[in-house]
Amino acid sequence: MTSATQLQQQPNGQGGDDDDGMGAEFTRTVVEAMGPATSPRLREVMSALIRHVHDFAREVQLTTDEWMAGVQLINAAGQMSNEKRNEGQLLCDVIGLESLVDHITFSAATKSTKGLTASAILGPFWRHDTPLRENGSSISFDTPADAQVVFMHGRVADVATGAPLADATVEVWQASTNGLYEQQDDEQVEHNLRGVFKTDAQGAYSLYCLRPTPYPVPQDGPAGKLLGLMDRHVFRPAHIHFMVVADGYRSLVTQIFDEDCKYLANDSVFAVKDDLRVRFEPRAGDERASLELEYNINLAKAE
Amino acid sequence: MTSATQLQQQPNGQGGDDDDGMGAEFTRTVVEAMGPATSPRLREVMSALIRHVHDFAREVQLTTDEWMAGVQLINAAGQMSNEKRNEGQLLCDVIGLESLVDHITFSAATKSTKGLTASAILGPFWRHDTPLRENGSSISFDTPADAQVVFMHGRVADVATGAPLADATVEVWQASTNGLYEQQDDEQVEHNLRGVFKTDAQGAYSLYCLRPTPYPVPQDGPAGKLLGLMDRHVFRPAHIHFMVVADGYRSLVTQIFDEDCKYLANDSVFAVKDDLRVRFEPRAGDERASLELEYNINLAKAE
Repeated sequence: MTSATQLQQQPNGQGGDDDDGMGAEFTRTVVEAMGPATSPRLREVMSALIRHVHDFAREVQLTTDEWMAGVQLINAAGQMSNEKRNEGQLLCDVIGLESLVDHITFSAATKSTKGLTASAILGPFWRHDTPLRENGSSISFDTPADAQVVFMHGRVADVATGAPLADATVEVWQASTNGLYEQQDDEQVEHNLRGVFKTDAQGAYSLYCLRPTPYPVPQDGPAGKLLGLMDRHVFRPAHIHFMVVADGYRSLVTQIFDEDCKYLANDSVFAVKDDLRVRFEPRAGDERASLELEYNINLAKAE
Repeated sequence: MTSATQLQQQPNGQGGDDDDGMGAEFTRTVVEAMGPATSPRLREVMSALIRHVHDFAREVQLTTDEWMAGVQLINAAGQMSNEKRNEGQLLCDVIGLESLVDHITFSAATKSTKGLTASAILGPFWRHDTPLRENGSSISFDTPADAQVVFMHGRVADVATGAPLADATVEVWQASTNGLYEQQDDEQVEHNLRGVFKTDAQGAYSLYCLRPTPYPVPQDGPAGKLLGLMDRHVFRPAHIHFMVVADGYRSLVTQIFDEDCKYLANDSVFAVKDDLRVRFEPRAGDERASLELEYNINLAKAE
C-alpha cells in the first residue's frame, strides 16, 4: 500500500506505487468502467468525484468502520428529509459546499461586473407559492413582542446603465424571532414573514419586515450531530433572504446580514459576504417601524 | 475564480489565486472552523473530506443544479434504506469505495504476510443471526431446478506456521440462482443458503452449497440509476461470501469468485481479486453434488 505521506506528495494518486492494485490503477479502473453512452458532463463530474473520493480515503487511511459510520449518517439524513426540511442539503451547507457551488454558478460567472449585487445560498426554506403583496405592506402577521419592525425599501436597477427595472419581482423571506420559519412553526400563520413585491415604474419596492435575529440550524439530525463532533456552534447570523427576478436579467438569490450580529464572522453555513452586510438605521415619524433599511439591488443582463 | 486548470496544477487548491474568497482561503476557513474539542482523528478525516469535496466542486465547476441533483440522489438513498437493504452503501460500492476501504483496513495492514487469504467487501446481505450447522450438511433448503450443487471443503490454518486452527467459525452466505438472498425473497425459507460451520481438530470444515451465479445489484434505487447514467451493467460476478473467525487471529471477510464467470473482469462493485478466483471441479460418486471445491483459508495472528 502506498503510504499516506507518499499519496499526499502525489496529487490524485497518479504516478504512485501501485503494485497492490488499490492505488491510482484501481481508481482508473473504476473511472474507465463508464460506458460510451455516458454523457460528457456526467463523465467529467463522476471521474473527478471518484478520483477525489478515492484520494480522500487513501490520504486518511479510512477504515471500514469509519466509512460505515459515514454511510449511516448519510442514510439518516435522507430518512429525515421531507417537504419541510432537507438534511442532505444541510450536511453540505455545514461543510461550505452550497456556498461554494452558489459562488461557482452565479458570482464567478458575473465576476467582472462591478457593482453587481452578490449572491448567497437559497437555503432550504424558500417556498414556490409565496403570495404577491402590495408595496408598503407588511410581511409580519403576528409580530412577536420581542421584534423590532423595519421599513425596508430600495430600487432594482441594471448594473451596467443604472436604469431602473420596473415589474421586477422582489421576494423576501425570513425567520421569526423564535428562530423558526413559518413552515417549521405551527404558531405562525401560513406565509408569515414572506412575500413577493413588484417594482414600480421607478424600480422601487418597499415593505415592513422584522429586524432579523440569529437562529440555530436544526440540531436534531445528522448535520447537527456533525457540527457537535466538529465542536462548532449551530447559529446562522441574522439575515433576510432575497430572490429577485426581472425579464431579460440574470435572476439573483441572496441574503443580507445585520452587520451588528455576533455570528457574522462564523456563520454555520458560510454564506456571509462582505458586500451583503447591512446596517439597520433608526427611523423617526413612523409608528409602524423603529428601524429603516434602504437596500438597492443591481442585476446583470442575461447572456 | 481560480480556473479549473490552475486548480489541477495546484493540489488541494493551496497556493492558488484566491482573491475572490472562494478558493483555498475559503476552504481553510471551513476547516479551521472546527473547535478545539474536535477529536484528532475526526479533525484529520473532516479536514481531508472538506478539502477534497471543495477541490472536486472547483475542478468541475459544479453548478447549484448539479449539486442539488446529487443531494436528492443521496436523500433518496437514505429513504430507500432499511433493515433489508442499504442504498447508501450500494452507492459507495458502485464507485469502488467499499472495496478501497476494505483494502485499507484489512489487506494493507497485513500485506507483508505471504499466503494470507485476501479480503473482500462484506456487502449488505450478511446477517448477525445465522445458525450454526454441522460439517457436511447443506445450506440449501429448497434447491432450485437450475442449480448445480457443490461439495465445498477446506482447512483453516495459521498463515505463518501452517498449523490447523480448530474451533474456528466459517460462515458462508450466497444468493440463490434467481439472484436473490433469502432476506430479499419471500419464496426462500429463513436462513436459506447461509450457515456457520466450526472447524474440527484438523481445522477442517465442509458443506454443500450451490455453484454461485451472477446477479444484478438492485436497480430500483439511486445506485441502479447512477449505474445507468454511467452506462454500466449492474451484474456482480458469481461469488460466495465468507466470514472466518478464530480466537487470537485477525478475522477475515472475503468472497470467492467462479473463474468461469463472464463478469469477473467488470464486477459492478469492484470486489474481485485474482487470489480469490476459484475453479469448481467435477465430483464423482456423490449423489448429492456434481461439483466440488476445496478452499483453504489462512489467517494471521491478531496484533
